[in-house]
Amino acid sequence: MPDNPTDEPWKAPDCAGLVQPQQYHHANPFKFENGQQIRELTIRYETYGELDPDKSNAILICHALSGDHHCAGYHEGATKPGWWDNMIGPGKPIDTERFHIISSNCLGGCQGTTGPSSINPLTGQPYNRDFPRVTILDIVRAQKLLLDHLGIFRLHAAIGGSMGGMQVMQLMTEFPSLPERVLILASTARQSTQAIAFNEVGRSAIHQDPNWNEGNYDPQNGPDTGLAIARMMAHITYLSGQGLKSKFGRDRRQESVSLTDVEFEVESYLRHQGRSFVNRFDANTYMHFTKALDTFDLYGENDDLATAFKNIQARVLAVGFTSDWLYSPEENRDIIRALLRLGKHASYAEMEAELGHDSFLLQHEGYFSLVRAFLDGPGKDIPNHG
Amino acid sequence: MPDNPTDEPWKAPDCAGLVQPQQYHHANPFKFENGQQIRELTIRYETYGELDPDKSNAILICHALSGDHHCAGYHEGATKPGWWDNMIGPGKPIDTERFHIISSNCLGGCQGTTGPSSINPLTGQPYNRDFPRVTILDIVRAQKLLLDHLGIFRLHAAIGGSMGGMQVMQLMTEFPSLPERVLILASTARQSTQAIAFNEVGRSAIHQDPNWNEGNYDPQNGPDTGLAIARMMAHITYLSGQGLKSKFGRDRRQESVSLTDVEFEVESYLRHQGRSFVNRFDANTYMHFTKALDTFDLYGENDDLATAFKNIQARVLAVGFTSDWLYSPEENRDIIRALLRLGKHASYAEMEAELGHDSFLLQHEGYFSLVRAFLDGPGKDIPNHG
Repeated sequence: MPDNPTDEPWKAPDCAGLVQPQQYHHANPFKFENGQQIRELTIRYETYGELDPDKSNAILICHALSGDHHCAGYHEGATKPGWWDNMIGPGKPIDTERFHIISSNCLGGCQGTTGPSSINPLTGQPYNRDFPRVTILDIVRAQKLLLDHLGIFRLHAAIGGSMGGMQVMQLMTEFPSLPERVLILASTARQSTQAIAFNEVGRSAIHQDPNWNEGNYDPQNGPDTGLAIARMMAHITYLSGQGLKSKFGRDRRQESVSLTDVEFEVESYLRHQGRSFVNRFDANTYMHFTKALDTFDLYGENDDLATAFKNIQARVLAVGFTSDWLYSPEENRDIIRALLRLGKHASYAEMEAELGHDSFLLQHEGYFSLVRAFLDGPGKDIPNHG
Repeated sequence: MPDNPTDEPWKAPDCAGLVQPQQYHHANPFKFENGQQIRELTIRYETYGELDPDKSNAILICHALSGDHHCAGYHEGATKPGWWDNMIGPGKPIDTERFHIISSNCLGGCQGTTGPSSINPLTGQPYNRDFPRVTILDIVRAQKLLLDHLGIFRLHAAIGGSMGGMQVMQLMTEFPSLPERVLILASTARQSTQAIAFNEVGRSAIHQDPNWNEGNYDPQNGPDTGLAIARMMAHITYLSGQGLKSKFGRDRRQESVSLTDVEFEVESYLRHQGRSFVNRFDANTYMHFTKALDTFDLYGENDDLATAFKNIQARVLAVGFTSDWLYSPEENRDIIRALLRLGKHASYAEMEAELGHDSFLLQHEGYFSLVRAFLDGPGKDIPNHG
């Protein structure tokens, strides 16, 4: 055993510890919003912290486009923790000493929950292009199956940023009695035209990659170039102009000798982002999730959130980040405005943040205090004496 | 001859008329900033309006990344005029009844001026990857050769937007006595990190296209897919979120049946932009011009515009457009601030505009009046009595 505790970062007192993914196998068919179905569904998930005997302290975490079920603690042998380890752990804002936290890989994903790269039991081959079109509603319904399986019918809170924010909005709309608190971070109730436009460029890069093969690509030889291009571009939208300037400026890695060489540091950074993404992500999942984002629209035909939100019971907090130009502060504020017009318990907070959309993943004191206070505060059933 | 005058739009009284591209062949070697040279240089250009006998009424127009020398009037048989025909013509702000307007295709371009797709006289083959690296300074030095050839040593004004704005800034820096007025539109004195990042994604799409062949691609079978992806993405940066929303919203072209089909109108629009671009543009030129943009930095090592601007003689106006997030209002204002600190004649105007960077190409009354007034106003040699 190593003596140096830094070799075992999961032993840190504020770490959720060593965690192991769990798996729920739903042996019945799962029917998608569009009417198609798959014969069975596996959901990969993790939990942190103990569930109270009365099952009243569960918090559901919903991940963003490129996230997964592993949001806190360490896997055996890993050097990096889950993607939201700064937020989730003993004594952290989402406190594993008080809450039982559940996080699952989204339906359609590529990290263990059934998705396009999973084996279709009917054919023995990956679903690939035959995987049904996934929507945010489908993702949320799959999560509800998991919660039912776990016997959890009441959530202390549902929390999500970006695509995760869409999921918690859909959850409070579809299952109004389930969450007591809903925390929406850097999200939108309707994908903007510009966000659709960027996603379309990414999808075009993927499906025009020579290895795409109509989605039925060889898993060892997929449309990696297109997926990397999509990721490089999307990554710019997760940051801000000022953030990029502060981090990289016009620093040069080398004087470029050819037009294709890396010249500026920011180019090297983006290429790395693209390369590392293809090693952990499936192109079909990227196609599905970006379409799920683009078709997400709680405003609906009436161009009004009132219909979707009329039965909301949860207390809702939405947080916008000033430099987020993907899901702007205004888009987050508009969610709360609609709830307030309906007389719901809702509030909006805007965080000064320089680093764009991804600010919701970063530690800021005011932001973390706000999350903590919201989880400590009254839920749907308790009158607000504040 | 057709009776209907609309069949001959070049006959409209405010149209610069039928124009024919002209050509200047510079028979001597042209040496690039990086020391490399090409044996001879051809510059394709157009002129509109008469040159005064004392050659005092010439205006140089510098085009943006995807522009060319054809900025006003019609080519024989064409249904569309030059790219800035709303601005240039009889009685228009850049008035062909008063000014002699010169516009050339940039060095490195693909519309008639020597560029990577031109034949290298030493090999009888296109230069392709052997074309020397082009900078904004190289482009401006080539334009100076053309002006020398035309016997024009004094410009009533030099005007350019975006990459054209960089050229006119470089021109007033390199040849301070040449322009009396310089009009900079939606530009920057230093390419931002975010703009470099977007260009790098576009270049990556191109040089990872299977048809790239290290830049020595078959002209009939080039990296069209990559170039179209690059253009689709760049096009988003030329517009604004609000502009895209106003124009396309979430309008659907069809319910998408597969993940690769066009579903939203904005997707159809972007795909069209990509497709039509590859029919008129060369991928190597795109690589060179984006690198010319990215390496443009008049601030230089001292992180200060004072050195570059210390000898400026021209009266300068920079115009920023409120919704331009590619070359923000602040970046345009900073150019003028630096000039004012040096005691130069300079002013900044900010135009309310919803449509992003490309607003500089669109007709707004206030904007067009401003351009007209600036060209009517005092030049460098005339004290300002205003």
